[in-house]
Amino acid sequence: MEYRFADRISKVSPSAIRELFKFTQDPEVISFAAGSPSQEAFPVEELKEIANEIFSEMPYGVLKYGVSEGYEPLRQQIKDAMKAEKTFREEADNLFITSGAQQVMDLLTKTICNEHDVVLSEEPAFVGSLNTFKTYNVDLVGVKVGADGMDIDDLEAKLEKYGDRVKFIYTIPNFQNPMGFTMPIEKRKALYDLAKKYQVIVLEDNPYGKLRTSGEEVANIKTFDDEGLVVYAGTFSKILAPGIRVGYVIGPEKLIAKMIVGKQATDVHTSLFAQVLASKFIERTNMPEYFKSLQAIYRKKVDFMSEQIDKYLLDYVTYNKPEGGLFIWCQLKDGIDMQAFCKKALENKVAVVPGSSFMIDGQNINSFRLNFSNPSDEDIVKGMQLLAKTAESMIK
Amino acid sequence: MEYRFADRISKVSPSAIRELFKFTQDPEVISFAAGSPSQEAFPVEELKEIANEIFSEMPYGVLKYGVSEGYEPLRQQIKDAMKAEKTFREEADNLFITSGAQQVMDLLTKTICNEHDVVLSEEPAFVGSLNTFKTYNVDLVGVKVGADGMDIDDLEAKLEKYGDRVKFIYTIPNFQNPMGFTMPIEKRKALYDLAKKYQVIVLEDNPYGKLRTSGEEVANIKTFDDEGLVVYAGTFSKILAPGIRVGYVIGPEKLIAKMIVGKQATDVHTSLFAQVLASKFIERTNMPEYFKSLQAIYRKKVDFMSEQIDKYLLDYVTYNKPEGGLFIWCQLKDGIDMQAFCKKALENKVAVVPGSSFMIDGQNINSFRLNFSNPSDEDIVKGMQLLAKTAESMIK
Repeated sequence: MEYRFADRISKVSPSAIRELFKFTQDPEVISFAAGSPSQEAFPVEELKEIANEIFSEMPYGVLKYGVSEGYEPLRQQIKDAMKAEKTFREEADNLFITSGAQQVMDLLTKTICNEHDVVLSEEPAFVGSLNTFKTYNVDLVGVKVGADGMDIDDLEAKLEKYGDRVKFIYTIPNFQNPMGFTMPIEKRKALYDLAKKYQVIVLEDNPYGKLRTSGEEVANIKTFDDEGLVVYAGTFSKILAPGIRVGYVIGPEKLIAKMIVGKQATDVHTSLFAQVLASKFIERTNMPEYFKSLQAIYRKKVDFMSEQIDKYLLDYVTYNKPEGGLFIWCQLKDGIDMQAFCKKALENKVAVVPGSSFMIDGQNINSFRLNFSNPSDEDIVKGMQLLAKTAESMIK
Repeated sequence: MEYRFADRISKVSPSAIRELFKFTQDPEVISFAAGSPSQEAFPVEELKEIANEIFSEMPYGVLKYGVSEGYEPLRQQIKDAMKAEKTFREEADNLFITSGAQQVMDLLTKTICNEHDVVLSEEPAFVGSLNTFKTYNVDLVGVKVGADGMDIDDLEAKLEKYGDRVKFIYTIPNFQNPMGFTMPIEKRKALYDLAKKYQVIVLEDNPYGKLRTSGEEVANIKTFDDEGLVVYAGTFSKILAPGIRVGYVIGPEKLIAKMIVGKQATDVHTSLFAQVLASKFIERTNMPEYFKSLQAIYRKKVDFMSEQIDKYLLDYVTYNKPEGGLFIWCQLKDGIDMQAFCKKALENKVAVVPGSSFMIDGQNINSFRLNFSNPSDEDIVKGMQLLAKTAESMIK
C-alpha cells in the first residue's frame, strides 16, 4: 500500500524539541530543553486530597459524558477571575474549556481559516503553535520582533500586503516563548488598533502570565477589545500541572459558538476528572497567594540562572533577563555557529533548544533557548560551565 | 466585526441529539436519546481506590507532560490484548492513545484527506463521526446498508464511481450506531477485499464490541489486514467510563507515525491521569470476567426493552433485536411520519432520536433510535406505553 497523505500534514515534522527528548532521557545529560513548569511547584498534597474527594462525592459526575463547553462550575470560576481582570466581558464574550491551550490554536484555526488564508505570527514563536497552524495548510507569515515584542511597522506592512487574506495575528505578549520578552502596553494598544483597522482577529496566547518574577503586570490585549476581535487562550498547564491538559478560551460569543462545534467534532469534551480537579483546586485555594508562592519559586530560579550566565557565558552570549515565564533566550556572539554549538553542547551532555526550531521555515539564526524552571541549581552551574567550555572550543 | 468562518465549519451544525439534551434535562422526560453506557456498569469503587493509589505512588507521573503516543504501560497492555485478538500485528502495526475514539476519526481524516477527497460511510451512521469528517470539507458519500450491514454491491459501485478520490471507508461492524446490526464475517471479508482491490483505507470503529449480549463474536476486519489498509478505533468510553476520554488507534506503522504528528498539534497528549486510571484498572482486573459482568447487565437491559417493544409497539414499528451495543433501531410503519412522531413523543415527555440525525444530509427517513442502556426498567415500560399512545394518536 502506497499511503497518500493530506497536503496539510506533509508540511509538519515532529518538532526538534521532541527529537531532543531522546537525548534528554539520558540521565547524564543536563537538560535546558524543557518547556514545562517546575515540578517543585506542583501542589501534590492538595491534588491528592481533591482526587479523593471527587471519587467520594461525585464519581458519576466525572465518569459520565460531559458537555462540550466544559464543567460548568470551572467555567464560572474562570469567568469570574477573568472578569476581575477585565479580560472577560459578560455581555460580549463567552468561554469554554479546552484540552490544553494547544487546542485553542487548533480550534481557532479550524474555525476561521480556509487553506491558504494568511496567519501572521511573531517570529521566532512557539513551535507547537506554528505546527498547529501548519496543519491547516494556511500561509504562515512571520512578523519581526525586537526586545519588546512585535515590530509594529512590520506588522502593518504585512497586514497591508496580504489584505483580506489575513485571518489572525498570533502573539504571546507575556514572557514570550522562546524569547522571553514582554510587550509593553503601548505596543499592545498599537497592535490592537491595527487589528481594528484591518478587521482581523488577534490570538492572544497567555500561558505564562501569572509567572511574573519582576516588573509590573501589563494589561492583556483582550482588555481593549471593544469590537470582539481578540481570542484569548489560557491554561492550567503552567500554574497547576500540564499533564492534566486543561486550558480555556475566551472570545466573542459568535466565534466561540462555532469553535464549540469544532470541539465537539474533535474530542467531544475535555476529560472531566481533570476539569473538576482544577475547579476544586481553585475553590479551596487563595489564588493570589498561590500565584505569589509560584512567583517566589520562579524568581529564585531565573535569578540564579542569570547569575550563572553572567558568571560563565558573557564572553560568548548576550541575553535579556525576562520578567517571568520559563525561558531565557541567548544570542551567540559572532563567530559561533548556532547549529554546530547546539550539537557540540549535546556531545558535552547539555541540551539547549536551537533557535531555528522556532522559525517558520526552520532557518538558521544565532540564538538558542534555555529553560530555567526545571534544572536543579547544581545542574544550572554545571550546565553553564559546560556551555562555556563548548563555546570556548568553537572559537579556537 | 463581521466574522468570516472557514468553509469546513459552515457545513457542520450542532447535532440534533445535542439539541435534544435541552429537553432531556427535564426530569419529567423519559430519555431514550442517550448514547452513553449504563451508569450501573461503572466500577466506581475500584476507580476510587486507583485514583488514591495514583496520587500516592506517582503524582508527578500524572501531573507532568507526557508523550504524544500515550502512557507506555497502557499502550503495552492494549497491544497485548489486541495481539491476542489478532487485531494488532507487532511487525506491521503501531498503536497510540487518543482523547476518545472521536479523536481517531479526527486524526485519520486530518492525516489522509485533502478537501473534496471522498469518504464512503455506511448510512445511516454515527452522527459524531459524520460531523468530524465534514469539518475537513471532504465529500461524504453514503453507502446503503441492510439488516446485516453495508451493501457490498453499492460499496463497489461507489468505489468504482469515485475512483482515486476515495480515501477511506467508514464502518462500525459491531452493533452499529444507530442501526444495531452486526456485519457477518463474509461481509467483512468482502469489504476488505474491495478495500484491497481499490487500495483504500478502512476505518473500523469498534466502540461496542465487548458489549455483546447474544450470538457469537465475529473477527474484526483488522484481523484480515495483510496489506496495512485498516485503521482500528477502540475506546474505554463504553467499557469503563466515557467522561475520562480515553481511546486508542491501531494502524499500519507509517500512517500511525503521521497521525501522531497530528495528535501533537491538536492536544499534545491525552490527560495522563485518565490514561493511568485505565491502565491500573486493566492491571488489577480479570478483563474477560469483567466483560462478562458488563454483558450480563446489558443483556438484561436489551431483553427487557425488546419485551416491552413487543408488548406495546408492534402495531406501529418493526425492529431487529441487536446482538449487543446500546441501541435498538425502530422502523415506523407506513402512515406515521417520523419527524412528527418524534416531536409528538417529546410533547408526551419521551425523547427518542429521529433517524434523520444519522443521515449525511439530514434527509427524512422512517426510523428512530432507542437507547436501552440508560433508562430504568420502570421508565422503559412507561416510555413504551407513551410511544404507543403517541403512534396511536397519529394514525387516527
